[in-house]
Amino acid sequence: MTNALDHHAMLAAAIAEARKGLAEGGIPIGAAIFDEQGTLVGSGHNRRVQNGDPSMHGETDAFRNAGRQRSYRKLTMVTTLAPCWYCSGLIRQFGFPRVIVGESRTFQGGIDWLRSFNIEVIDCESEECVTLLTNYIQKNPAIWHEDIGEA
Amino acid sequence: MTNALDHHAMLAAAIAEARKGLAEGGIPIGAAIFDEQGTLVGSGHNRRVQNGDPSMHGETDAFRNAGRQRSYRKLTMVTTLAPCWYCSGLIRQFGFPRVIVGESRTFQGGIDWLRSFNIEVIDCESEECVTLLTNYIQKNPAIWHEDIGEA
Repeated sequence: MTNALDHHAMLAAAIAEARKGLAEGGIPIGAAIFDEQGTLVGSGHNRRVQNGDPSMHGETDAFRNAGRQRSYRKLTMVTTLAPCWYCSGLIRQFGFPRVIVGESRTFQGGIDWLRSFNIEVIDCESEECVTLLTNYIQKNPAIWHEDIGEA
Repeated sequence: MTNALDHHAMLAAAIAEARKGLAEGGIPIGAAIFDEQGTLVGSGHNRRVQNGDPSMHGETDAFRNAGRQRSYRKLTMVTTLAPCWYCSGLIRQFGFPRVIVGESRTFQGGIDWLRSFNIEVIDCESEECVTLLTNYIQKNPAIWHEDIGEA
């Protein structure tokens, strides 16, 4: 149905959100939700640092910004980083059929678990996403660990 | 370490949040986070209807209101209803060792999954919680289904 060109175009919206977060002094992880026609439904980025809000990961901020939806069964969640268990749970609970991740090298999260429910997970293996986040983590290891609940 | 009296006292804080949500015209599900000494760290309730915010379940609102925490490894999540996959993912990702649920009859969510990671799940089997939510669902089935991502 979709091709690599589409995936990268959608991923660009999530990367733009990640860069916006970085410019605000936050963790550079972004996400975007698209419908079947490739129309943007909502996008967002991690807000731990800038809003002091631990509940807003890229995916949950995009989910909030998409507003109330009757169904997510034809929507695609796009995120610069493989979703953590919190965000993987969101994807499963609300029935997203497809997730496009920028990368899963820095953090793998729940992508194998999502695949076990026949949720399609496409990994773009984006060097841009890896570089963006690993540069941040090198400078801010404590904030990164806090964001994923590690000691 | 704790007894049924403690569990019910903690649950009362989550129920108070659920009732606050109901009074605002929202889905009556509430949550509260306590530390080892039984001190309230944060509490919240579902905000789908009143804030138009699908990302705020009881647990995620309590998590947000608790603010940034270095660790959740000594905290207890208390919720009037068994956590959905989204909220179960939150509990797993951030390493909560214990969850107290008001009831799991109306909705079971991810409690067995949480138990499989040795997260302690205490079910208070509260009739008050069952009645509060089932009365709401009877009057508002579409909103309830939307809140758990069902058709």
